Parts: sequence; C-alpha cells; structure tokens
Amino acid sequence: MKKSTAPRILVATGKEINDVRYATGLTAPDPFGLLVESSGDMHLVVSALEAARAQKICPRATLHTPSSLLGSQASRRGLAAQLLALTRNLRIKRVRVGPYFPHGIAHELQKGGVNVQLDSTPPFPERAIKTPREITAIRRSQRAAVAAMRGVRDTLRRANISPDGLLKIGQQTLTSEMLKAQITRVLLEHRCNAEGTIVACGAQAARPHDEGHGPLRAGATIVVDIFPRSLDTGYWGDITRTFMRGPVPPQIRAMYRAVLAAQKLALSLLRPGAECRALQQAVERLFQSRGFPTRFSPPGKESGFIHSLGHGVGLDIHESPRLRNEPGRLAVGHVVTVEPGLYLPGIGGIRIEDTVVITPTGHKILATFPKKLEA
Amino acid sequence: MKKSTAPRILVATGKEINDVRYATGLTAPDPFGLLVESSGDMHLVVSALEAARAQKICPRATLHTPSSLLGSQASRRGLAAQLLALTRNLRIKRVRVGPYFPHGIAHELQKGGVNVQLDSTPPFPERAIKTPREITAIRRSQRAAVAAMRGVRDTLRRANISPDGLLKIGQQTLTSEMLKAQITRVLLEHRCNAEGTIVACGAQAARPHDEGHGPLRAGATIVVDIFPRSLDTGYWGDITRTFMRGPVPPQIRAMYRAVLAAQKLALSLLRPGAECRALQQAVERLFQSRGFPTRFSPPGKESGFIHSLGHGVGLDIHESPRLRNEPGRLAVGHVVTVEPGLYLPGIGGIRIEDTVVITPTGHKILATFPKKLEA
Repeated sequence: MKKSTAPRILVATGKEINDVRYATGLTAPDPFGLLVESSGDMHLVVSALEAARAQKICPRATLHTPSSLLGSQASRRGLAAQLLALTRNLRIKRVRVGPYFPHGIAHELQKGGVNVQLDSTPPFPERAIKTPREITAIRRSQRAAVAAMRGVRDTLRRANISPDGLLKIGQQTLTSEMLKAQITRVLLEHRCNAEGTIVACGAQAARPHDEGHGPLRAGATIVVDIFPRSLDTGYWGDITRTFMRGPVPPQIRAMYRAVLAAQKLALSLLRPGAECRALQQAVERLFQSRGFPTRFSPPGKESGFIHSLGHGVGLDIHESPRLRNEPGRLAVGHVVTVEPGLYLPGIGGIRIEDTVVITPTGHKILATFPKKLEA
Repeated sequence: MKKSTAPRILVATGKEINDVRYATGLTAPDPFGLLVESSGDMHLVVSALEAARAQKICPRATLHTPSSLLGSQASRRGLAAQLLALTRNLRIKRVRVGPYFPHGIAHELQKGGVNVQLDSTPPFPERAIKTPREITAIRRSQRAAVAAMRGVRDTLRRANISPDGLLKIGQQTLTSEMLKAQITRVLLEHRCNAEGTIVACGAQAARPHDEGHGPLRAGATIVVDIFPRSLDTGYWGDITRTFMRGPVPPQIRAMYRAVLAAQKLALSLLRPGAECRALQQAVERLFQSRGFPTRFSPPGKESGFIHSLGHGVGLDIHESPRLRNEPGRLAVGHVVTVEPGLYLPGIGGIRIEDTVVITPTGHKILATFPKKLEA
C-alpha cells in the first residue's frame, strides 16, 4: 500500500483529562479510559500498574485492566481493544463520545460493531457548579496567587529607578524573569505550580498573552498575571494586577480608570440568572463610551478591549461558564474570573482580574488584593 | 429529539500536545491546531490572543486566526470550523489524523467534504531521535532529579531510628510527604516541576505506582522515583533509587542484588541495533534464574518484575522507544530509562532507574548517582 502523503492535522488538547479527573479523582501519566453508564455506574480501564492506586482513589468505579479484559492477549493490544472488550463484557451496543474523544478509538469501536454517537454536551455539566469543597480548593490556589502578587508588589515598591528609567534592586536591573522566579517560589511554598506566569512590561504588556521578558522599567505598565494550579487538588486560581513605577501619564491613568470601572461594573452585575453575554456587552459599552476600541483586530494589530470578560475556573484554567458573547446564565456556585483589559500598541496594556464565586445575592471575591496602579 | 442515554466513554489523554510542541515549540492553555503539508510546510490555527506569541515562537509556520479564516463569523464558531476553512483555503481534499485526534473535529471535517484518513504512525517519528540540544535539555532535568535524590539520601542518612522503628529528624517523624516537599523544593530551584513524585515505604513500595504517604521506617525499603519536567524546555528526566535504614534482611539483600544485576545486564546490552524486546527478555530471564516471578498478575496481586524495562523520555515522560516485548531497535540518539524492579507484597519493592542516551558504541548515563541500598 502506498503511504499517503495527505497533510497531517493535529490538535493540541488535553480536554478530557479533567472531566475524567472530576468524575474519578484519578490522573495518570498514560492515557486511560472511563465508561459512565446512564445509571451513573462507572468503569475505569487502567494499566495493571495503576490498578491498586485507581481502586483506592475511586472505590466506586469498577476496575478493569488489560489482562482482565483481554487475558493473555493483553500485552499486545492497546486501549481501543480494551475499551471494545469492555463494551462487549457489559453488552453495550451504543456509546456516546465527546468532540475531544480520540478519533482512532472511536474508529476501532465502530469497526467492532459499537454504535458511536457524537455528543457535544459536557459529560458532567455539574462541573460548572462548584461544591463547597471545590470552592475551598480554588480559594487556596487563589490565596497562593495573592501571596505571590504581594511579593511582586513589594519588590516593585522597593526597586529604585535608574537615570535611564530601569528598575533596580541594589545594583541589579529588575527583570521579568526575576519576578517570575519569585512568583514561582512563593507558589511552590503553597504547593502550587505556575507555568505561563505573565510579567509583561511596556510593548509586551500590550499583547495580552505575552509572558514577558527582560528589564522592567519605570513609566511603562507592568501586567502581572498569576494562575497557580494546586499540586494536590488540581484546581486553579487566577489573578491579574497592573503596576507602574514613576509618574503616570494622563493617557495611562485614563486607561487604568476605565479598566477599574469596567471591573466594578461587571462585578456589580454578577448574580444568579445574569446573562453571560450581557456582562460582556455592558463592559464593551463602557469602554466604547470612554473612547476605547473593543473589536477584534488583525493579528499583531489588536487594540482596545480584545478578549472576553472572563471564564470559569476549576480543574481547567478555562472552563464553563464563559463570560463572552454567547448564551448562558450565571448560577450559584459558578466560579469565574472577571478580567477586563485594555491594550494599546505603543502605549501599553492594563488588565485587572479577580476570581469570584456566584452567591445567592451576588458574588464573593475568593481572595482579595488591592487594585492600585502605583506599586 | 430524545436525548441519548447511551453510556458515555472518555479517554484521559493529552497525546497530541507534545507532538505539536515538538514541531512548533508552542503550548497554549486552550486547544489549537496544526496542519503539516507533505512538503513540511506548517500552518498554525490559534486564537487572536496567541497569534503574536505563536508567530514569535514558530516563525516558519503560516499563522491563521479565527477571523483570518472565518471573518466576522469567527467568534461564534469553534476550532473544527476553523480547520475546515483552512483546508478549503489550501484546497486540501484529504488529511491524515492520528488515533488521538479529536473525534468531533474529524467528524466536522468529513461532513465538510474532507476525506479524513486515520494514520496510526507517529506524525514526527524523528521525535524518538534526540538532537544534541534535546539531550542537553533532558540532561538538565536529570541533573535536577539527581540533586533532589542527593537531598533525599542525605536526609535519610541523618535520620535517627526511634525504638519503634520510625525514622526521626530531631523529634519529628520523617514522612513521605516531607521528603516529597523537599524534592519539590530542589526541583524548583532547578526550574523543574515535580508532580507524581514517589516516596513509598514498605507495603506501598511493593506497588510500583503508589506515590506513598505517611511515616517512613527502618527495616523497610523506600522507593524514591523522581521525574522532573523543565518549566522552560518541557523535557523530562527520570531517576529511581531504593534506600533502606537499619539492618537489611537477607531476602531484601537478594532482591536488591538481583535488581542491580538486572540493570547492569540491561545497560551492557544497550547499543544501536539492539532489539527492545530482547532487552526485556534478557532481564526477565535473569530474574527467573534467581527465582523471582516475572509475569503480570491479577490487579492487587502483582508480584516480581511486573513492568517494562524502560521507556523513551523526551517531551513525554513515556514515549518511543519502549523497552518491552514489542518490535523495534535502538538507535543513536534514543533516550531511554533502564528501570528493572521487583515487587513482593508483604516484603517490599525495589527499583533502580537511570536515564541514558544511546551512543554509537553503547550508552551514556545522563546524570549519575550512586546505587547503594543503605542510605
């Protein structure tokens, strides 16, 4: 058979990992399977090496291993064969899979006579509504983030400004890398990881996802976005503050006030039943009324308020509900970020973000930190 | 339409993330797409927020964003619609996808008239052969692991043994958790993450993937498995040592000597052209000749040498090549672990693991650490 030269497509995703962790508490270095019956009964398909651990972590699931499913054939066959054997053992003829289910495994199941239905609804919609235990876990990660933010603010505060405008700690020029290392240390003391921390100054701050690098200087905004994940629970926190040293030009001051007003407005609108897109639109109107652009622009030319107002936070850093132009209403127990921002190439970027839980009467910020531009 | 009550299947996997990172250097919090033409030309499909960063990290890829692909419709439509638009722009009628490609996106492409071919071969087979730069990255992570292991050994060495056999640092009972926290601190100083570190004593050590918890004691083996991932490069290291305090019973001594001999034998057989399964089999024969079982057993009853001899290490902690009963030969530039182990319920577990690179004349251990049972 001639080898196909058709282009290859890949998608970088780990979407189902956290759904499985939510339902079972289990994570593992290699792919493993979960089957949930309509009764709620769960079946885990894991390697023999993970079996004892899986049973301890998720005693309510029925455990299957390659050898229990495939006998002596087990070592030569992969997860698809194991899942097919499981459906046969359970006399299951139809299964539902989500959009991020592995295509090759869906194909093997179909070839084996199982009717595979694509179902784009979330497998565990209740994931969006956090239990008190989950809220505690997110609050812990958020407290770690606040502790790290306090450290950043203190370091910026004690920095001196050199004649050429650079921030100095003693003789050393303060850099994005130094602050990120400090953040990582503090998060670790709280048993949290921190990949992707943003400390972005000047032109870098005008690109919302630029992680930042190099010297920090006075007279430019410094966006600090800290999103730790607990090593123990897997739950994230997410906070952003924007700082500045030296005199603040009027244009930056106006931007900062607009972002602060936008966040205040959005927070005031948070309550059970509030429409997610109404929040996004209210903030867009506020920015427009103050003369800032709010539409998406060509890559590299983004300007104004160019991202969504917020996103759910849980086992995923971005999850349901989304505060943006799409259907959906807030409910008690939703945990979301509220993070308006403005990005003006040539001038700088400003973002202010808190993570909050929706309560019966409005919202509660999970861990607070002052919102002052001057460090 | 009646909602289906068919069982739902999920697979916990992030398999394609590292293939995409390998080819482009890019990671992002949300799913994004990569199309590779047979010419090698690459197309990245990322959100507008990631565009500037993606262009900087992977200048050789052509960049596409939702709005460049879908215009004003962009904000309402997902990655599948974006990838479909990309194939149309490029006049591509057939694509290949791997087994872990998202089923929902494959379905959308097919519905849109693209012929989606399942291709189970790795998209970048050259990933298994590490470049000098990759070997340097893995060596750095492995050095971090060795530094952490040295700290563990030193802590175990200075612990006192209480009358009831517990290890004590001053008045405090030494626990698995304390050593894991110490390991995490050292790894972080080397800019490495450490999730899943194993410090498992006694009965816990007899289960190869038990992460361990609670007090550590004399007269029982302590398996310490450290696998850091660089926060900067994404490359892993992997090392295991087994320690013991107090007198060593003859049975444990015999187990330790067998594992050490197995590792020595395996290392001596490493060279370009060596058959992976021959290595596994040679180690199994050695264990059998010394009276230890080597076959997979029912869950919870595993006994003897019950896992594969080793695995490739790179951007995935487990990747190609695998040292186990399957086809494949070693080649210069392969980086693999060599980690024989013995697990006897009621007695304990022992594993000794190094990470090595295959060289023209044999192998080189990437960072060394003594292999002494007595801490």
